[in-house]
Amino acid sequence: MTFGRVAILGPGLMGGSIALALAERGLVGRLVIYDRSAARLEEIRAAGVPAELTDDPREAVREADVVILCVPIEAMAGLVREIRDALKPTALVTDVGSVKGSVVGEIEPLLGDRAFWIGSHPMAGSEQSGFAAAHSDLFENAAVIVTPTAQTRPEAVERAGQFWQALGGRVVRLSPEVHDDRVAQISHLPHLLAAALVCETSEEALDLAAGGFRDTTRVASGSPELWTEILSANAETVACRLAGLIHYLQALQAALEKADEPSSRLALRTMLKKAQHARSQIPESKSKLKKHS
Amino acid sequence: MTFGRVAILGPGLMGGSIALALAERGLVGRLVIYDRSAARLEEIRAAGVPAELTDDPREAVREADVVILCVPIEAMAGLVREIRDALKPTALVTDVGSVKGSVVGEIEPLLGDRAFWIGSHPMAGSEQSGFAAAHSDLFENAAVIVTPTAQTRPEAVERAGQFWQALGGRVVRLSPEVHDDRVAQISHLPHLLAAALVCETSEEALDLAAGGFRDTTRVASGSPELWTEILSANAETVACRLAGLIHYLQALQAALEKADEPSSRLALRTMLKKAQHARSQIPESKSKLKKHS
Repeated sequence: MTFGRVAILGPGLMGGSIALALAERGLVGRLVIYDRSAARLEEIRAAGVPAELTDDPREAVREADVVILCVPIEAMAGLVREIRDALKPTALVTDVGSVKGSVVGEIEPLLGDRAFWIGSHPMAGSEQSGFAAAHSDLFENAAVIVTPTAQTRPEAVERAGQFWQALGGRVVRLSPEVHDDRVAQISHLPHLLAAALVCETSEEALDLAAGGFRDTTRVASGSPELWTEILSANAETVACRLAGLIHYLQALQAALEKADEPSSRLALRTMLKKAQHARSQIPESKSKLKKHS
Repeated sequence: MTFGRVAILGPGLMGGSIALALAERGLVGRLVIYDRSAARLEEIRAAGVPAELTDDPREAVREADVVILCVPIEAMAGLVREIRDALKPTALVTDVGSVKGSVVGEIEPLLGDRAFWIGSHPMAGSEQSGFAAAHSDLFENAAVIVTPTAQTRPEAVERAGQFWQALGGRVVRLSPEVHDDRVAQISHLPHLLAAALVCETSEEALDLAAGGFRDTTRVASGSPELWTEILSANAETVACRLAGLIHYLQALQAALEKADEPSSRLALRTMLKKAQHARSQIPESKSKLKKHS
């Protein structure tokens, strides 16, 4: 089975990994990669990816059976406006954006019935970005969320699910709003927190930091531009979850201020035990993606 | 060079790693390990550690030139009371406790001039504990903080420094109070934060968690009992640093609530950039300690 002609628009970490995975698994008839940067296209040519390369997005999507939008969130709508008249009406169009409410809200009305559109978000990646970090096994056992709305045609849900499954993903269906709330909890808020923690740590203390601190704050090495975009696109939900966390931290502060009282120690211990247990339930990734400190 | 007769009281992750490192590096004349649990001693015997094993702490420290207290913080003072009359007056006595103000404050008056006492804290370890997790290279390039006070004799500072250096550590001298503040920032507060984050994340969201979330919350897998002890022993300082962080998070929440204003986006981006830069300055560990998820 192949997905026919696949167009990847924006071969960064995500797009590049999709290209490598499709090629390695023999899942593609023809692979076309679009990027507006000649240097980026040259990097991909040099890496030997078996794909046609173009700096014309309309050219890339013409005759494509599957189109994957892998550009930054804020560039998506502009790109869709550029390509929409060149799409085959039977094309599956999806994206890899980390926020779905705003992206789906913009793209859905732009595409209408011009193609089979559905939003996607593969929960894979790292603090790294760019094609140099791409890996053919990035999606192996990763959750990939597809986000149908009331307007989504069942065939789009079906085909997007098959596509991500073929790359190794565990497909999960959620509405864009539920997606944004869950991802705020497990990705956006942790990112904000890691960055805040680093900013609030004195230079002298950072000098003493060991493996635990490096782990806790690893995500804070991610691109500030990318993350400003992500946090802004999901700002309302992240703000709401952050408010809840602040409330929780205030209770912990109160417990620490009376740490000699047995009830405070019990509260601390109960919280730590709950955290240890909940963390032990997190499913293990099978991705062999190398981690860099 | 050897350190003569070395007694390790409490062979968990820290004590066990010290024993393995001393043996591997040929730094010890005679190695004596004390634990009150026969099962633990049997575990060490089975691992083939070249040491005399005893369940009598007074027996362990008799004739010892170096004594390392590796029991939980709250057991330290009781243990020191038990052994202090059996110590050689020339013995170097130190510990590996994660909090120094309370530990040093208790032990210093108990020992007086009965031995050369100074507090130590090797900034190494992981969310694991127990002898099974011990590694001979745990201290390789790790910061080891020694905490002299006005009462500490210069020979104690000197000898403790030589000891940790010989195990591969980078020795740093700080007062117990400065130690506790820095460690609150890079270890105790991050631990509390990771645990709070896990507790505030819904089960449905945890199901989607990827590598970033696992990294951010790895420390929350640590022993709840051990960490209740640590956080309680440094409660005042941790509460103060937590208050500062909450303040910072409240400002971030306000920025997110006005994320469509350019000034808010600029504030977010500046914060993320500062975090990325600061994190890139954290020194790299050379420990080969295996990380488990």
